[in-house]
Amino acid sequence: MPRPVQSGFGERTPHLWGLCCSRPYLSVSPGVLPLCCRPPAWGRAARPPPSPLQPPGLVPCRSFSNNKIQVELDESSGVAMMKFKSPPVNSLSLEFLTEFSISLEKLENNRACRGVIITSAVPKIFSSGLDITEMCGKSVEHYAEFWRAVQEMWLRLYGSNMVTVAAVNGSSPAGGCLCALSCDYRIMAENPKFSIGLNEAQLGIVAPFWFKDTFVNVVGYRIAERSLQLGSLHPAPEAHKLGLVDELVPEEKLMEKAAAVMAQWLALPDHARQLTKSMMRKAVLDRLVAHREEDIKNFVTFVSKESIQKSLRMYMEMLKKRKS
Amino acid sequence: MPRPVQSGFGERTPHLWGLCCSRPYLSVSPGVLPLCCRPPAWGRAARPPPSPLQPPGLVPCRSFSNNKIQVELDESSGVAMMKFKSPPVNSLSLEFLTEFSISLEKLENNRACRGVIITSAVPKIFSSGLDITEMCGKSVEHYAEFWRAVQEMWLRLYGSNMVTVAAVNGSSPAGGCLCALSCDYRIMAENPKFSIGLNEAQLGIVAPFWFKDTFVNVVGYRIAERSLQLGSLHPAPEAHKLGLVDELVPEEKLMEKAAAVMAQWLALPDHARQLTKSMMRKAVLDRLVAHREEDIKNFVTFVSKESIQKSLRMYMEMLKKRKS
Amino acid sequence: MPRPVQSGFGERTPHLWGLCCSRPYLSVSPGVLPLCCRPPAWGRAARPPPSPLQPPGLVPCRSFSNNKIQVELDESSGVAMMKFKSPPVNSLSLEFLTEFSISLEKLENNRACRGVIITSAVPKIFSSGLDITEMCGKSVEHYAEFWRAVQEMWLRLYGSNMVTVAAVNGSSPAGGCLCALSCDYRIMAENPKFSIGLNEAQLGIVAPFWFKDTFVNVVGYRIAERSLQLGSLHPAPEAHKLGLVDELVPEEKLMEKAAAVMAQWLALPDHARQLTKSMMRKAVLDRLVAHREEDIKNFVTFVSKESIQKSLRMYMEMLKKRKS
Repeated sequence: MPRPVQSGFGERTPHLWGLCCSRPYLSVSPGVLPLCCRPPAWGRAARPPPSPLQPPGLVPCRSFSNNKIQVELDESSGVAMMKFKSPPVNSLSLEFLTEFSISLEKLENNRACRGVIITSAVPKIFSSGLDITEMCGKSVEHYAEFWRAVQEMWLRLYGSNMVTVAAVNGSSPAGGCLCALSCDYRIMAENPKFSIGLNEAQLGIVAPFWFKDTFVNVVGYRIAERSLQLGSLHPAPEAHKLGLVDELVPEEKLMEKAAAVMAQWLALPDHARQLTKSMMRKAVLDRLVAHREEDIKNFVTFVSKESIQKSLRMYMEMLKKRKS
Repeated sequence: MPRPVQSGFGERTPHLWGLCCSRPYLSVSPGVLPLCCRPPAWGRAARPPPSPLQPPGLVPCRSFSNNKIQVELDESSGVAMMKFKSPPVNSLSLEFLTEFSISLEKLENNRACRGVIITSAVPKIFSSGLDITEMCGKSVEHYAEFWRAVQEMWLRLYGSNMVTVAAVNGSSPAGGCLCALSCDYRIMAENPKFSIGLNEAQLGIVAPFWFKDTFVNVVGYRIAERSLQLGSLHPAPEAHKLGLVDELVPEEKLMEKAAAVMAQWLALPDHARQLTKSMMRKAVLDRLVAHREEDIKNFVTFVSKESIQKSLRMYMEMLKKRKS
Repeated sequence: MPRPVQSGFGERTPHLWGLCCSRPYLSVSPGVLPLCCRPPAWGRAARPPPSPLQPPGLVPCRSFSNNKIQVELDESSGVAMMKFKSPPVNSLSLEFLTEFSISLEKLENNRACRGVIITSAVPKIFSSGLDITEMCGKSVEHYAEFWRAVQEMWLRLYGSNMVTVAAVNGSSPAGGCLCALSCDYRIMAENPKFSIGLNEAQLGIVAPFWFKDTFVNVVGYRIAERSLQLGSLHPAPEAHKLGLVDELVPEEKLMEKAAAVMAQWLALPDHARQLTKSMMRKAVLDRLVAHREEDIKNFVTFVSKESIQKSLRMYMEMLKKRKS
């Protein structure tokens, strides 16, 4: 049976003050084929009725699993669990990113889903960040496709209408940290061996401006300036102190806590919460959308340089040697 | 006898670095009849001499009281006390807002007044926020007039040349919270039963962007993002921890503390303090001024919808039932 | 022997995501003859080879001292020590500011120098801020030259490619505070008699917008708003609590700590750190560059007024009387 609409709210009390709330990200960017063409929730009077081709009560996705990510939706609560399961380190490859965006899109379009908890099925690691093999020895077209997929993931996650809670049950450097930062709330296992941060500078590279914007919006300007320049990976207790994560709990209570936080956020009427979220995040999302093609071009130009290719090959050699 | 100008400063040492300090808010907005046409303080070499029609030593307002707000000016200190006295909950009706703006204007234009302490004469409540009856079953013209009055109050209070101290002696949700946030300093009675916050999302509505801007400028981006999405009402101790209020004191010491804080702020030369305040707040004030008519139009369009009218009627029914 | 390039990084792994990193500050401003015309580091593939006219191993500056500032470069560590030695209070005169900018330029252009520690050789005072005698009884041309020198110092220091650490070993009001705020990291002697802050409002004047921007980027909006309006000078412990300085240490350990912090920052590859720093600070630097001539014109207009000249003369009389 389809989950009833949030009691007393939702349909009936939409936004009185609707300024600054249109969100045309995915359609603005020229030459981009967005994965999703669904109009934003606040462009409609209410959620659309189920398609006539789709029998009532039969929601399109309950549980689906691809190669890299497992998704389970609990229709009674309206909460999906999204588990990264791409050993050894959940690196964000093109395939992973594409599955991630598609999974988010499916949930976003599913009336029965109001929130998603993101966590890892791989022990000790949440996600190690962008997959460096995608940036090495490939064609210019491949680099562009990869970078667009990174952008797409972030646009979907940071701009999601759903409540997004990161249950960070392992280390989370660079792109992994970005995933956590893009959620509405971050809970981390209080294991001091787990660390999190945008450590790009340690690798001799620089986080793109929208990583930085997302970071500043969570920890403030000064902490971001220092942490980004030092490429710091903060152990869980320090990350909590800095505001990089909202809460620490013993690892065995992480999922329980995530569910409790989700319930608290879902107690709010969706429509008002979504409009408020959009009001807060729109400027930063719009900034990437406005510079999306330029951002891709920049990435492709730099990654195509022989000096960088050489550097990346050396880095991968080092990683291989460490393993063996 | 008129209060002497601040010793050694004021007239004699105006701004050396005057960039970014013009404040043409009230004149910019087309089609708006501002309540006040006094040129901003820094557009003049010094305060104008008393009008010849007004005998020296006879200051126009010492104490005045309207239906909703009582104002008393202590000319020896230059501090006005403004008390909300509109039982049961000091809701911000059109009449209340108009009196509020007029009172602020009178004080702003009074040479003898340099600061104002804002508090409530109603037990346990500072202000309950916007009066919902003004948004229900009225004409389109009424909605526009009401919304303009809300804007006008905020433009005057947030942009005031006077030192403004909120002595929050009761709960202060939504628009009540905005009044406190718009002051220079917030002291709250340390009673944990009193709470404060922009809880619009709890009612299924969304705080307008200038409420949000004011909030972000006080508590920072991250706390604002979370608090606005959850529509949180923070008990006094939590509000203090988050920086939403600057200080907590026992309720019986609230006015004494407010007077002490005011004295500290008045020790500064008015001119430099006013220019500094303007430099800090100008961008946010300008943003509403630039979008004022659009903001009104948005409000009127949404509040005029039958679905919203129905929702508001239901909400008021609920409130009536609670009372009886 | 020239210091070897940072092991494994630097040359080999330049920025993958290079957006937002050009820094044309010094060339943009029309009519300004920049002290330095060196292209920014990230505009080149790598540091240029030593000039053929300059024998390898012979670095142009090791130690140089002008009238006001002493500079010593330790080539083994790549760290320069810059000591203000302009008794009695290291006030920022035109001569001081010019030496400061020239010293920064020399170090910036020296391949052997990667970081600079800024401290005072005068007991109990870091720097007292702008020299008021430069603003009094001089020609319009002099005022313009002085103000341009203030701007130049800030543009060089805030935008420096080097790691900049302030070892604040004494009080640091107004312009002295700005110097500290413009560094990457601030360590202060934990002596509560030493205070720091932008106290311009206490003198009846207003900090220019770029002082304010720098301050907000360190302590956040709310603390800056309150501190600037009150013209607060914060004793060291309070300054640390507010985030105005990053760390307090006993005075005798200040230089040791500064060296340790510097080593931590220098462990990062220069190129990535510099790009990250530029990404963070570019918007604020650009804002002054875009309004530089206007800012000078404003300063000159105001400081030339007879009322202000009179006020400054009185202020200096007062200072003279205090001394005697």
